[in-house]
Amino acid sequence: MRVTEPLALFDHHCHGVVRRDLDRAGFEALLTEGGAAGRWGGSRFDTRVGLAVRRWCAPVLDLPPDVPAGEYLARRAELGYAEVTRRFLGAAVLSGLCVDTGYEPEPLTSPAELGAAAGAPAYRIGRLETIAEGVLAGTSAAGFAAGVADRIAAVAPDVVGWKSIAAYRGGLALPGARPGAAEVTAAADRCLRGTGRIADPVLHAYLVWTAVDTGLPVQFHTGFGDADLDLARADPLLLTDLLRALAPAGVPVLLLHTYPYHRQAGYLALAYDPVFVDVGLAGHGAAGRTAEILAEVTELAPLTKLLYSSDAYALAEHHHLAALLYRDALAAVLDGLPDAERLAGLVADGTARRVYLP
Amino acid sequence: MRVTEPLALFDHHCHGVVRRDLDRAGFEALLTEGGAAGRWGGSRFDTRVGLAVRRWCAPVLDLPPDVPAGEYLARRAELGYAEVTRRFLGAAVLSGLCVDTGYEPEPLTSPAELGAAAGAPAYRIGRLETIAEGVLAGTSAAGFAAGVADRIAAVAPDVVGWKSIAAYRGGLALPGARPGAAEVTAAADRCLRGTGRIADPVLHAYLVWTAVDTGLPVQFHTGFGDADLDLARADPLLLTDLLRALAPAGVPVLLLHTYPYHRQAGYLALAYDPVFVDVGLAGHGAAGRTAEILAEVTELAPLTKLLYSSDAYALAEHHHLAALLYRDALAAVLDGLPDAERLAGLVADGTARRVYLP
Amino acid sequence: MRVTEPLALFDHHCHGVVRRDLDRAGFEALLTEGGAAGRWGGSRFDTRVGLAVRRWCAPVLDLPPDVPAGEYLARRAELGYAEVTRRFLGAAVLSGLCVDTGYEPEPLTSPAELGAAAGAPAYRIGRLETIAEGVLAGTSAAGFAAGVADRIAAVAPDVVGWKSIAAYRGGLALPGARPGAAEVTAAADRCLRGTGRIADPVLHAYLVWTAVDTGLPVQFHTGFGDADLDLARADPLLLTDLLRALAPAGVPVLLLHTYPYHRQAGYLALAYDPVFVDVGLAGHGAAGRTAEILAEVTELAPLTKLLYSSDAYALAEHHHLAALLYRDALAAVLDGLPDAERLAGLVADGTARRVYLP
Repeated sequence: MRVTEPLALFDHHCHGVVRRDLDRAGFEALLTEGGAAGRWGGSRFDTRVGLAVRRWCAPVLDLPPDVPAGEYLARRAELGYAEVTRRFLGAAVLSGLCVDTGYEPEPLTSPAELGAAAGAPAYRIGRLETIAEGVLAGTSAAGFAAGVADRIAAVAPDVVGWKSIAAYRGGLALPGARPGAAEVTAAADRCLRGTGRIADPVLHAYLVWTAVDTGLPVQFHTGFGDADLDLARADPLLLTDLLRALAPAGVPVLLLHTYPYHRQAGYLALAYDPVFVDVGLAGHGAAGRTAEILAEVTELAPLTKLLYSSDAYALAEHHHLAALLYRDALAAVLDGLPDAERLAGLVADGTARRVYLP
Repeated sequence: MRVTEPLALFDHHCHGVVRRDLDRAGFEALLTEGGAAGRWGGSRFDTRVGLAVRRWCAPVLDLPPDVPAGEYLARRAELGYAEVTRRFLGAAVLSGLCVDTGYEPEPLTSPAELGAAAGAPAYRIGRLETIAEGVLAGTSAAGFAAGVADRIAAVAPDVVGWKSIAAYRGGLALPGARPGAAEVTAAADRCLRGTGRIADPVLHAYLVWTAVDTGLPVQFHTGFGDADLDLARADPLLLTDLLRALAPAGVPVLLLHTYPYHRQAGYLALAYDPVFVDVGLAGHGAAGRTAEILAEVTELAPLTKLLYSSDAYALAEHHHLAALLYRDALAAVLDGLPDAERLAGLVADGTARRVYLP
Repeated sequence: MRVTEPLALFDHHCHGVVRRDLDRAGFEALLTEGGAAGRWGGSRFDTRVGLAVRRWCAPVLDLPPDVPAGEYLARRAELGYAEVTRRFLGAAVLSGLCVDTGYEPEPLTSPAELGAAAGAPAYRIGRLETIAEGVLAGTSAAGFAAGVADRIAAVAPDVVGWKSIAAYRGGLALPGARPGAAEVTAAADRCLRGTGRIADPVLHAYLVWTAVDTGLPVQFHTGFGDADLDLARADPLLLTDLLRALAPAGVPVLLLHTYPYHRQAGYLALAYDPVFVDVGLAGHGAAGRTAEILAEVTELAPLTKLLYSSDAYALAEHHHLAALLYRDALAAVLDGLPDAERLAGLVADGTARRVYLP
C-alpha cells in the first residue's frame, strides 16, 4: 500500500521490551493495558490491538496476515525474542527514541539495546517519582526538598527529559503555585510516616517545578493507562492551573496519551505555548481508529504541538504497530492540507528534536 | 440491502411497550428521552430517532420510507397497538430479551408478552432500588439490611440479573468498600426520616454488594437518560473504586448506555475482567450515528465485553430500530477484521448468554 | 463545488472586527484562541484554522488557494481592512447577526457597521457581567440587586438577548434556586471588598434570573474559549440544576460553543425544552472537522434546537470561514435525511428568528 519511503518517527515516549520468550499467557498479559486473559474477557487477542497484531505483525515474522494467534506465537517462539525484537524495532522505522526506564517489574532491554535494534539513537527519560522515592528512603523530611533537587540536578546530564506519574498516584489536580519549603517538608513527613510512596499533590508539584529548573522538558502521564489508574483523575484539564503557572518559564511540557481527553489536551496545547500533546498508547491500543483519534486531537492542537509516541511496553510488536498505524493516520489527517509534507515532518520528527535535542 | 439472514440479537436491557393506541401527542411524548413536544422544540419527529422512525419503521407498517409523521401515525392507529407490537418485535429479530419491569408509570407488556411478540425467550431483571423501597416501607432502619438481603435472595430465582439506578438518584460516586451494618442502618434511618426514596451512596452500594452475593449479574444505568438525570453524575468512571472492589468476586457488572462517556466505559471494560459495556439507547437515539458510537466504545473495550441492548421503552418502534441500526453498525465496525463472523456472534448473542444464562 | 444558491445563515453570536490593518504578528495574534505566535508553537498559520484561511479566504482576496501566509497578508494589507471586511462579510452570506459588544480591548466595528458590510440586519446582545460591573462601580452592596435589575430593564429595549460569561469567571456550577436578596447583597459586598470583578456563583445566577425576567433569550458561554478559561469549569452539564429551574419560565437559553462538551450539550437540548445549542468557534477553529463535530452535537440535540454562530472575533476571515464551513457541514449532516431542506432552513435561520425576533 505505502509505496513511498516510510516517514521515520521520533518516538518520544516508550519503554523497553522483555528479554525472554513468551508463552501465550505471558504474551496476552502484556498485549493490552488490561492485564492477563480473564474468565470473562477471554483471550486478549479479541481486542483491536490483538487483531492488529495478527494482521500487521504476522508478515514481519514471515506469516500471512490474520494467522491464528497460536500460529503467530509459535513462529514468534521459533524466532526467539532477540530476533523478534530486532525485526519489529527495525520495521518501526524510527529516527530516535526517548525511553522511560522507570517501570520494570522485570528486566527490559536498555535504551542502548533498544536503540541498537531500532538503528536509531535512544535517550533516557528520568521518572520523577522514582527518583524522589529513592531520595526519601535515605533522608529525613527536612532534607527531602534539597536532597531531591540535588539528585535531579545530578541525573540531568544523563537524561533528555523527565516524566511525572502523578496521574497514577495523587491525580493531576496539582496546585498552580510552586510549593514552599515548609509545605514540601510537611508533605515529605506525611509520606515518610506512611508508605514512603509519593502520592501527594504537593510533592508531585514540587518535583515538576524542580524538574523545570533543569530546563529539560517534562512529560506527564495523562489519560488512558492500566487498571491502577483512576482515569477521571488523569484528565489533563486538572493540570490547567499548573500549566498556566509553568508557561512563563517556557520549558516544554508534554501531555502523554491524553485519550479519551485528547480534545481537552488539544485545547491546552493551543492555549499554552510550551504545552505539547500526543496520543501514545491509543495509537495501537485502538488500532483501526488511530486516524480518527489523531484528527480529534488536532481539532484544536496546533500541528506544531503534536508529537509521536508509542508508549510501547514489553512487547516489540507495540513499537512496530504504533509506528505503522500512526504513520498511516498522520497521512490521512494531513491529506489534502497545504504544506502537508512539511507538517508531517514536524509531527514525525522535527518537533521532538526541537524539544528534546535543542 | 442486507441480503443475508439477519443476525439475531440478544437484547440484554429493554422495557415493555404500551398497551394502548397513541395519538400524536402521546406518541411523541414517548419517542425520545426529552418528553413531550414543546413550545421551542416542536415536534419530536425532528430528531434523529424521529426521522429514523419515518424511514425504517414505515415499511414495517406497509408504508413507503419517509412518509409524513401524520400518515405514519394514522396507519399505526389503523393497525392497532397489538399488531404494531407484533410486527416490530418480530422485525427486530431477537434471540432473547432481558426486561426491566421496574419503571411502569402505566401498564406495559409483560416480559412474557414481549417475548411472545418477539418469538424469543424473555427474562426478568430485578430493579434493586424498587425492591429496597418496598422493604423499607415495611421495616425499621435496623431491619433494613437483613430484610433487603432476604428479599433479594427470595427474588433471585425469578430474575436473571439486577439493575441499579443509582445514576438517577445519588449518582455513581459510590464507595469502594462494602458498607458495614451500622453504616447501612444509619443510612436507612436517614432515608426513612426523609422521603423513603433510596438516594444514598451507602444504600446504593449495599444493594449492589447484596446483589453480587446472589452470583447474578448486576447492571448499572450509566450515561444518557431522561431529564431526571444529572448526566455528570452518571459518568461510569465514578464507579471506578467500586468496580475495582467488586472485580475479585468475578460477578459480571454491565454498564448500560454509557454515552457520552462510552469511551470511558470502554476503558473500564478493558481494565476489569467482569465489566461489560453497551451503548443502549444511543443506538436508536442517535440514529445515523450508531456505527461511529459503537466504533468509539470498541476503541478500548475488548470485543468480548460488548453486548447489545436497545433500552427500548414504551414504543415497539424502539425495539425494531435499535436492532436494525445496531446490526448495521456492528457489521460496519467489524468489517474487514479477522474473525469478524465469530466476533459478531459474541457481541450479538454469545456473550449475553454466557453472562445471563450460564 | 456548491452550485446552488448558498443558504443564508443567521449568526446568533459574533463580535466585531478590527478597524486597522494588521501586520503578520498582529494577524496571527487574532487568528486562534491561543494568542500570539510563540517560541514553541511557531506560526499560528500551522493550525487547522490557519490552513483554512490560506485555502478558503485567499480566493476572496483574488488569490489562488493555499498561497503562502506572507502573500496572503500582503494582499490583505494592499486591499485595506475596510475592503477586506466588506468582502468577507459579504462572502459569508448572512441573513442576520447578533453581536456581542462586551469584549473590546480595542475598538471593533459596531453592529451597524458589521451589518452594513454583511448586507443584513445586526442586533445587539447585552453582556450581563459587564452591565453588572458598571452598576456595582456606582452603588453599594445593598443597592446592587435593585440597581442591576433596573439597568437590565433599561437596556432591554436595545438588545435582542443577553450573554453570561460565568464560564470565564466563577465557572458554570451555578445554584439551581433563584438567589434571595440577602444572598445577593452579601455576594455583592464580597465583590466590592475585592476587585469589583463579578466572579461569584450567586451573582452570575442572579444576573441570569434577572435577565430571564425580561423575557429575552440568555446565552451562556460554555466549552472552548481562550487561555483565561478553566475549560473543565465550562462544561455545560454544570448548568443542569439551573437549566432545570429555568425551564418552566420558557425563556430560551442558548449554550454557545459547547466543544468539547457538545455531546453533553446535545443532551441538555433534548432534555429541556427552552435549551438550544451551537458549536460556534469550533466551526472554523477546527476547520476540516466541522461536519464531524456538528454530527456529534445532533446525536441527541433535536434539529429544532441547533443554531448557527460563528463566534467570529476581530478578523473578518472568521465570519466567512465559519459560515462556509458550517454550511458544508450542515449539508453533510442532513444529507439523505427526510425533510433535509426544511430542517436546514430551521438550523440556518428559522430557529434563530423564532428565538431572537419573535
